[in-house]
Amino acid sequence: MLVTILLKSAASTYSQSNVPTGTPLTGNYGGPLRPQVHFSPPQGFMNDPNGMFVDADGLYHLYYQYNPTATVAGNQHWGHATSSDLYSWTNQPIALFPGGPTEGIFSGSAVIDVNNTSGFFPNQKNGVVAIYTLNTPDRQTQEIAYSHDNGYSFIKYGGNPVIDSNSTQFRDPKVIWHAPTERWIMVIAYSVGFEIGIYSSPNLIAWTHESNFTRHGILGLQYECPNLVEMPVSGRSDASTMWVLLISNNPGAPLGGSITQYFPGSFNGTHFEAIDGATRLTDFAKDNYAGQFFYNIPASQDQISINWASNWQYTNVVPTAGEGFRSAMTVPRGHYLTKLPRLGMSLISYPYNVSAVTEQELAYNSSLGNGTIFVDYSTVRSGALYFEANITGLTDSSSLAGTLNFTFSSAATGESVSGGTFLASGDFWLDRGRSSAGFLNPFFTDKFSQLGLYNGNGAWRISGIIDRSIIEVFLNGGELSATSVFFPTQPLDLMTLSIKGINEKATTSVGVWGLRAAWLNEADVNGTVVGNVTREQLHERTGPSVLK
Amino acid sequence: MLVTILLKSAASTYSQSNVPTGTPLTGNYGGPLRPQVHFSPPQGFMNDPNGMFVDADGLYHLYYQYNPTATVAGNQHWGHATSSDLYSWTNQPIALFPGGPTEGIFSGSAVIDVNNTSGFFPNQKNGVVAIYTLNTPDRQTQEIAYSHDNGYSFIKYGGNPVIDSNSTQFRDPKVIWHAPTERWIMVIAYSVGFEIGIYSSPNLIAWTHESNFTRHGILGLQYECPNLVEMPVSGRSDASTMWVLLISNNPGAPLGGSITQYFPGSFNGTHFEAIDGATRLTDFAKDNYAGQFFYNIPASQDQISINWASNWQYTNVVPTAGEGFRSAMTVPRGHYLTKLPRLGMSLISYPYNVSAVTEQELAYNSSLGNGTIFVDYSTVRSGALYFEANITGLTDSSSLAGTLNFTFSSAATGESVSGGTFLASGDFWLDRGRSSAGFLNPFFTDKFSQLGLYNGNGAWRISGIIDRSIIEVFLNGGELSATSVFFPTQPLDLMTLSIKGINEKATTSVGVWGLRAAWLNEADVNGTVVGNVTREQLHERTGPSVLK
Repeated sequence: MLVTILLKSAASTYSQSNVPTGTPLTGNYGGPLRPQVHFSPPQGFMNDPNGMFVDADGLYHLYYQYNPTATVAGNQHWGHATSSDLYSWTNQPIALFPGGPTEGIFSGSAVIDVNNTSGFFPNQKNGVVAIYTLNTPDRQTQEIAYSHDNGYSFIKYGGNPVIDSNSTQFRDPKVIWHAPTERWIMVIAYSVGFEIGIYSSPNLIAWTHESNFTRHGILGLQYECPNLVEMPVSGRSDASTMWVLLISNNPGAPLGGSITQYFPGSFNGTHFEAIDGATRLTDFAKDNYAGQFFYNIPASQDQISINWASNWQYTNVVPTAGEGFRSAMTVPRGHYLTKLPRLGMSLISYPYNVSAVTEQELAYNSSLGNGTIFVDYSTVRSGALYFEANITGLTDSSSLAGTLNFTFSSAATGESVSGGTFLASGDFWLDRGRSSAGFLNPFFTDKFSQLGLYNGNGAWRISGIIDRSIIEVFLNGGELSATSVFFPTQPLDLMTLSIKGINEKATTSVGVWGLRAAWLNEADVNGTVVGNVTREQLHERTGPSVLK
Repeated sequence: MLVTILLKSAASTYSQSNVPTGTPLTGNYGGPLRPQVHFSPPQGFMNDPNGMFVDADGLYHLYYQYNPTATVAGNQHWGHATSSDLYSWTNQPIALFPGGPTEGIFSGSAVIDVNNTSGFFPNQKNGVVAIYTLNTPDRQTQEIAYSHDNGYSFIKYGGNPVIDSNSTQFRDPKVIWHAPTERWIMVIAYSVGFEIGIYSSPNLIAWTHESNFTRHGILGLQYECPNLVEMPVSGRSDASTMWVLLISNNPGAPLGGSITQYFPGSFNGTHFEAIDGATRLTDFAKDNYAGQFFYNIPASQDQISINWASNWQYTNVVPTAGEGFRSAMTVPRGHYLTKLPRLGMSLISYPYNVSAVTEQELAYNSSLGNGTIFVDYSTVRSGALYFEANITGLTDSSSLAGTLNFTFSSAATGESVSGGTFLASGDFWLDRGRSSAGFLNPFFTDKFSQLGLYNGNGAWRISGIIDRSIIEVFLNGGELSATSVFFPTQPLDLMTLSIKGINEKATTSVGVWGLRAAWLNEADVNGTVVGNVTREQLHERTGPSVLK
């Protein structure tokens, strides 16, 4: 998280008495801008995901930088939520509280100390340890806290800090277990030195500095929120793995504000070395920052991250404050590495486990050819959709032609979000500029594009999730992705998806699904109660029209 | 120049008979979108600047990638123009013609062969040699041509190519004289391999491959148009110099399409080494590409570049074709290196010699304080302005507060271009989104921003040039710069410049000047003849109002 902006833009609103302890938080998830398949805080302001791990029961724990008492950054706690499918979240009591009004529990990570290396768990053999930055006006130090109840409540270690410092710019520890050397490894940002420090520890308490990864890629003002993660190369069936170091930058990204870059490379237990000098970005829009990877997923499996879907340039002023909250996370992203044309080794990012919430088929056509589908989704209670369009049977790059475009618009106002791809050039674009009438801001860039390259597999695909005030789109299963928030004055409820000018030998299939409203209950719904919609009723009402 | 886009988007319109030879080209420079202090081609399509050098008389020679027969890319010639002040250009006859419809004279550079190393100049001791890429359907080879008349006409060397190749992606040679080793040095792009090749030659004819600079920074689809240039560090009075390698990328920039990055470093005559792994960009908007540095400026002096002010994502469809041309160059940019906070060694880029065209003082106030100036510049014949606002007397970073903003708008339609800076955060932004009603395009990104950082010198400055359909803005004398084209349906003719909320101890000075119409003569002016405006007349008409 960003100290500079915090201190300047948000007077501390810390008030211990305002923060409920030990009881789950609640919020009104029924507002028109409130995402339904994305995590957002019950109330107040959220930024970085923290401490993410999967417990022994397969339950996912998400903590997050949280100001429970205002809708601007400041007064940092660790909020907490749990989910078994990564879409339906249960808000839990706040997990970590600052010790006073000048303290902040800043970003960090959590591990399961299986072998009780820390000695905190004599009676249970293992437990959860959180490693975080304690922010005070004159320094940032690294502290730990342990949990005897599987991560629901924490006891701050009496010997804190575990890494002292005289710096105000030393933060965001992310810890993993490195099996080959049987040690804990921490990556941490020396933010304004543009260095990622690598530390090792036998017990999470005594830390040894091993090396620094210095001045690589986009610098901006600060390095933040590093992740070091080992993951499969070339998909799930391949046994080989590679390391990736991810670094978030803020402010000063090429598009302004916040961005995340990544470096595939090797890690020998003490030093990380990138495979080349290239700069690679995780997202081509502006709302994907400070992502964290879940601890406790084997390196042979696709790794899962959750990312903060906002940008420090405007996060403190977006209009969702009218509904009592600011910021949402991305949907869970699955990741592996694969070698793509030109850029070489690349991080694939796709919506993980999205079938957990795809319940209403609104349109489906397995042989659309060149044509358009229209979907009125005003009766989909969540207001959220998953869509996918596949063009297959491409023989080679010379058969790349035509366009694949989508538009989501409001029947009431004509506001819209649109995007698409030109197969021949590979250009993939997203435009939120006609959907944010309620939010004019010079930093709210609205047109994004990046270049996809045909990977020779005979197919070209676009997919995405739209959820009231956030859209995430993916090219070719995640070779490129864009995450973008938007703030229409009226809900978007009409969709068109068009394929034009593609090669006559190619075949196309398209589908649109309404998503389960993971947060809503009847009491949450403002205005007219829509009620649950069966698939049959939905088909009657929207008449998914698939037109040649 | 970009082969891929060329071949796909523009059928060759080569027709030797359509191209005048040996006579200067003419064009109508009177259209409402036609820049008046920027170079643009007389007609047809222009892209990369080429072959730039300063001759013995101090005359600047600019060549450029040129399609004289259509307003889209293709049919590449080298156009030519000369100027003694870098703003008032004289169109010259086309300098280099392709040999047939399947050939293109692609980008390259020119040198003055002072010691006649080539042997081409036995009777005159020295002469101009152009080094360029010959593009044919199956390869790109490097050729040379020499001039016995100081660069106005060229003879292609009989022994071409001087560097053969089997590649279609090997281009854009930029040659300099390397005094320490007394050899010519060429940097050239292996475009899709993301390598800059470094070659040496004693005579411009025989070339030896020395090294490659491989896979650094943003990759995108292609590396293009490298420059290797030695320049002063920390301003003009400092005797120390450093090398900079510049690489243009297209497509695939973070903002989409085309961008230029640079690497400060060392060059030993055979190898270039960057000072660090950081990625640095020359511009934070989308219309600054393929810049070239003038040959024959001593390394102890500020170096001068001219850059193509467009982006391959939309250059072939911008609406200036209605006036018979597409694309303009940036104004000449002066450059030196200096060490800035965070990013470290940085390329400064400022409008060089702009006083050559600043002739009408429209507003001036040396102690505005917090306030706004309004300028009606509808009677400025060029439609072009230079403006500057300086805040001085800042004591330290804690005295940074307030905003400095400008807007140029059309009295007729309200279309506008605006920008500004927040002193406290350092954010510097530009918005062309309300000025391009005549040009809607998903790649025409309209909001740009980047982070300036207080450099401790007590001052904060914004300056810029606006010229009908192009704006260039500069923070703190060129620590950051943004170049942006825009296409209003009616001319912008009203300016406001506001300073608000600055520290009470700071003082401000602001000035706005009308620029000399370097291209217009009476016959060029469409519609009402405005005529020349004296400074006194102008003051009477516009009444530059400087309001507290």
